[in-house]
Amino acid sequence: MAGNLKAEIEAANVNFMRCFDGGDFDGLSMLYTEDCKLMPTGSATLIGREGVKAVFSSAYNGGAKKVQLTVAEVGELDANFEMAYERSQYIFFKEDGTEADRGKYVVIWKKVEGKWYLYTDIFNTDLK
Amino acid sequence: MAGNLKAEIEAANVNFMRCFDGGDFDGLSMLYTEDCKLMPTGSATLIGREGVKAVFSSAYNGGAKKVQLTVAEVGELDANFEMAYERSQYIFFKEDGTEADRGKYVVIWKKVEGKWYLYTDIFNTDLK
Repeated sequence: MAGNLKAEIEAANVNFMRCFDGGDFDGLSMLYTEDCKLMPTGSATLIGREGVKAVFSSAYNGGAKKVQLTVAEVGELDANFEMAYERSQYIFFKEDGTEADRGKYVVIWKKVEGKWYLYTDIFNTDLK
Repeated sequence: MAGNLKAEIEAANVNFMRCFDGGDFDGLSMLYTEDCKLMPTGSATLIGREGVKAVFSSAYNGGAKKVQLTVAEVGELDANFEMAYERSQYIFFKEDGTEADRGKYVVIWKKVEGKWYLYTDIFNTDLK
């Protein structure tokens, strides 16, 4: 189960990276549930897809043009295989390929009609 | 089930607050699994209880003498009723009762021999 789950989450992350790298923040926000909770540093928890658009478009406009997500661990959370958690690392790259930021995150995923959506997303930088 | 789960997690959080407020970081670290993942801002993920002791004793020595944890949401159990997630808010208070910091966190809990332990703990500040 965990093997399949990791592959499913990694496939979902490919969609996330494709949307971010393409500057498609409407598309990115649609990877989250409608009632998603985004928990960025320096802000209270943002509920809903508008927060996703605002936070990631701001990062993009601030110079992060590419994101790389690397799964450290996934786990099943519920009995119906419809919730999971992911613990991972992220790196944002600038246009010139240098690192803009690197850090870590935990996502709680929800499976809706066979598709995984990000439900809660909390992250912070590794940098001092 | 969710009602019971919330009560169980809140009871575990009382132990966390008691240990922190008492400056008992050995006791605090024992509330985490031996293979716990602590994910503080400004550091890579720390694995194991020594990281818990280091991070929270540093916050305490830095002036945070009391912590208040408020559960926003707890998630479903896994197939064996041994995993759950918590999305919550924290406030650290200084000795004079003023706020040292406030933020949010997500914890993945694991139930081991009938007792809940923090397994992954990621948090960040709400402050700019």
